[in-house]
Amino acid sequence: MKIYETKSAPNPRRVRMFLAEKGIDMEYVELDIAAGENLNDANRSKNVTTKVPFLELDDGTCIGESIAICRYFEELQPEPALFGTNPLQKAQVEMWQRRVELHLLLPIGMCFQHTSGYFKDRMNPIPAWGEESGKNAVDFLAVLESHLSDNTYLCGNYFSVADITLLCSLDFARVVKIRLQDTHPNLQRWYQQVSSRPSAKA
Amino acid sequence: MKIYETKSAPNPRRVRMFLAEKGIDMEYVELDIAAGENLNDANRSKNVTTKVPFLELDDGTCIGESIAICRYFEELQPEPALFGTNPLQKAQVEMWQRRVELHLLLPIGMCFQHTSGYFKDRMNPIPAWGEESGKNAVDFLAVLESHLSDNTYLCGNYFSVADITLLCSLDFARVVKIRLQDTHPNLQRWYQQVSSRPSAKA
Repeated sequence: MKIYETKSAPNPRRVRMFLAEKGIDMEYVELDIAAGENLNDANRSKNVTTKVPFLELDDGTCIGESIAICRYFEELQPEPALFGTNPLQKAQVEMWQRRVELHLLLPIGMCFQHTSGYFKDRMNPIPAWGEESGKNAVDFLAVLESHLSDNTYLCGNYFSVADITLLCSLDFARVVKIRLQDTHPNLQRWYQQVSSRPSAKA
Repeated sequence: MKIYETKSAPNPRRVRMFLAEKGIDMEYVELDIAAGENLNDANRSKNVTTKVPFLELDDGTCIGESIAICRYFEELQPEPALFGTNPLQKAQVEMWQRRVELHLLLPIGMCFQHTSGYFKDRMNPIPAWGEESGKNAVDFLAVLESHLSDNTYLCGNYFSVADITLLCSLDFARVVKIRLQDTHPNLQRWYQQVSSRPSAKA
């Protein structure tokens, strides 16, 4: 099997970091999304939404969406568990994963796409929406800062795929000049802790 | 336990329909989101993102995010399984669930919020983004139409939580005047099939 990805993009990094935590080796195929390689017929037939990354199994079956790929490997190799180990913890991982995606990763991506014009050959950038999205992302950092004052990781003492999503979101945020500030001591502490894991280099 | 929700909103319906498929009874507490009841201190302390629905357990623990609530009940009561029954199927459910959320439910919500001004007391509507989101949602209907020409449900013959999300998205789309057309016979067939399930009335 292999994963089609673009190494510099934030979502592929989530999957690489997840697989590194599991100790799973993978073959990667680099796609040049700036040049639109993901949009050609061959790749579109494998992954209709054309987003990276996507996984191709040996029988040709393809799975798109980063967290769908991660969940596939969580099921194939449950240890170490990164989606939770009991019903409540699984729900909490799903909750924080989605909160970070909807209120941080997605707004940062919108800010980048709508203010940079990076994909203007394939979308209609609306700069006012990009700027608003950037503000919304910054506002959510305050929510995370408060939450991490009582929690080692997003889900208490349990390191999960939600923390992977948060790390990849924060590092990606640099492209739109959003960075942690002195007002975020708990996020800074969390960031040092998670970014020093060997998987963060994947 | 009880769920705080707003009966007319699309996300609470996803959870009600999911619980109806499982045959799980629930106590519901109605929140008036138009009046901002979800934003008061008591509710914010239970659910920091202030979105509906959220679940409150008997010990006071709260779980936000519709799919986190659904996953909690999937773990507590696995049958009938709505998130898949093997690694590949679980990944496919996750994939289609996210595709429908990101390319249909979320854009429809953006279209509604940014063109109607419904929440203008608590956000900054950008009408051009609302209109663009509506176009993006309509474009995704063609992707679904093609996919459903070969599949009974989103994941082949397997009815899943992704179908629940799609039904709730399509019904919600009426508020922004997006409806299935004659060019969507497979989506129409799927819609008749899924909307006739008893759970669709939940």
